[in-house]
Amino acid sequence: MPKITDVAHKAGVSVTTVSRVLNNRGYISEATRDKVYKAMKDINYQPNELARSLYRRKSNTIGLIVPNVSHPFFSELTYYLEHFAHKKHYKLLLCNSNRDVNKEKEYIELLKQNQVEGVIMGSQVLEVENYLNLNLPIVSFDRALSKNIPVVTSDNYLGGKLASDLLIKKKCEDIAYIYGGIGGPHHTALLANDRYQGFLEGIKTRKDQISLITKELNTSEIESMVEEVSEFLKINPTIDGIFASSDIIASTIIQACYRLKKAIPDDLKIIGYDGVELSTVITPPLTTISQPLEKLSELTIDLLIRQIKGEKVPFNNLLPVSLVERGTT
Amino acid sequence: MPKITDVAHKAGVSVTTVSRVLNNRGYISEATRDKVYKAMKDINYQPNELARSLYRRKSNTIGLIVPNVSHPFFSELTYYLEHFAHKKHYKLLLCNSNRDVNKEKEYIELLKQNQVEGVIMGSQVLEVENYLNLNLPIVSFDRALSKNIPVVTSDNYLGGKLASDLLIKKKCEDIAYIYGGIGGPHHTALLANDRYQGFLEGIKTRKDQISLITKELNTSEIESMVEEVSEFLKINPTIDGIFASSDIIASTIIQACYRLKKAIPDDLKIIGYDGVELSTVITPPLTTISQPLEKLSELTIDLLIRQIKGEKVPFNNLLPVSLVERGTT
Repeated sequence: MPKITDVAHKAGVSVTTVSRVLNNRGYISEATRDKVYKAMKDINYQPNELARSLYRRKSNTIGLIVPNVSHPFFSELTYYLEHFAHKKHYKLLLCNSNRDVNKEKEYIELLKQNQVEGVIMGSQVLEVENYLNLNLPIVSFDRALSKNIPVVTSDNYLGGKLASDLLIKKKCEDIAYIYGGIGGPHHTALLANDRYQGFLEGIKTRKDQISLITKELNTSEIESMVEEVSEFLKINPTIDGIFASSDIIASTIIQACYRLKKAIPDDLKIIGYDGVELSTVITPPLTTISQPLEKLSELTIDLLIRQIKGEKVPFNNLLPVSLVERGTT
Repeated sequence: MPKITDVAHKAGVSVTTVSRVLNNRGYISEATRDKVYKAMKDINYQPNELARSLYRRKSNTIGLIVPNVSHPFFSELTYYLEHFAHKKHYKLLLCNSNRDVNKEKEYIELLKQNQVEGVIMGSQVLEVENYLNLNLPIVSFDRALSKNIPVVTSDNYLGGKLASDLLIKKKCEDIAYIYGGIGGPHHTALLANDRYQGFLEGIKTRKDQISLITKELNTSEIESMVEEVSEFLKINPTIDGIFASSDIIASTIIQACYRLKKAIPDDLKIIGYDGVELSTVITPPLTTISQPLEKLSELTIDLLIRQIKGEKVPFNNLLPVSLVERGTT
């Protein structure tokens, strides 16, 4: 069986040059390249490893782009996505975009080059055109990219509604909605904004008795968030109910109450959002709107693989959320 | 030399379709794909692009095996590993082993098949032989696999020592070490066991005045851990200082104190381990032994890539830890 040294000898070049042609590395003139290819063909040089990848059609790899896998929500999502991808014999290439346009663009190029079979997009700052030109099956998570790209999300509107209903039931009258923080400013396409709409709708039914104030956090650093919330609560001492747009934000509100010696839930009731493990770990355990992360992940993988197989899938995929009452309400 | 148009003509499909098959993009039925491959073979079509990927040996991909990326420690580790891999133009294939021997074995096979260039092993239940047979550059994280496999870890012994020194300084006399929990029973190779040895060494200097009791948690479920710790504290009501082997365990101790109405730090002082973001999010914020996760990750990637390039690297790579005092001591 012919070897790389035979190719080099036949082509009249060094083994290093053949290797460079094979690996497509370094500068090789077109003439040299042709000579090497001709030699390979002449002596029928075809290692098995090559032959195998020659007709390999499938990479069985899915690309996942998230803002930051160390965020509790995305770490649990990533865990479940990998779990269900593995069950279907797919591997997961993980990309953290840090919500940076350039890094996102770079990752999309990289995923195309590496021939992933599909992409799960959990981060989105780029213009939609970049995704439509991807020419790859894609599922968007929690972000409406375009009418032509399937999106999986939980019922954010219902989540907001459940939160307002509970605060009203608990007789809160001076209510705040606190959002932003981790992950920076919300993109307009972020479906999580529906949380606020649902919450507002619930509050409106009692608008004669209830005052609502909204507060956007300007930082994503925990200590600064606690300080920002503390200041907010000092300026607004009568607030007796808060809906936070994430469990992380809710945890910083608990810390602010601890500093200000406000009793939870007696002085102030708090509802978080996401239902990640963090909500069970903090003290007191957090009342929260729980997203069905396991089911959302299973559905995302299913929709992506069905597209990879050439099937058409529905564009809007909405799963219900649920209220989990714990120690903060 | 045959062209892509010849393939299209021979297969009776459009050039776009041939291109899609070659690039493994878009929706192509199995039948069409077969037709195109047959045409390519019949007319001996070998495009440069294909030849390129054919002969390309480098995948620029690193395989990462962790027990569970949703655990705060591993999610932050994964974030930093991806960050530094990306900086060196490597991608990360993520595998969650769930500490399951079969899944770990399956992943190792899969990583070999997919020709990752190296493996980072953050989970290890398999026999060492399986890793020695891997024939791939490997770096073990926090687990001593064998004398022949480089390991990156933080100074667990020092961490334990710092914890005992602080509890002694804070005049604790009835001390407990609580470990286990999340992730199940510790494997003997787990270097984290050194934490206990360092802690013990510190306690020994005052053994005439201090009593030490160790408690292994038998569950990895948060609510059960809180119950187990509560029971333990009820049976041992005089305990005034606890060193927990992780921040997660420390957070369940805080919850148990909340239930039993023990004041932190007045009645009971608590020190965690890891220094993950969770330690800043819980109330009161946790005093903890902080592992230098960013530096550990950078070193891990560096050692792996140096091995991929054929360099020899040191086997023992130990980075210092630091004490971060917050509200629980």
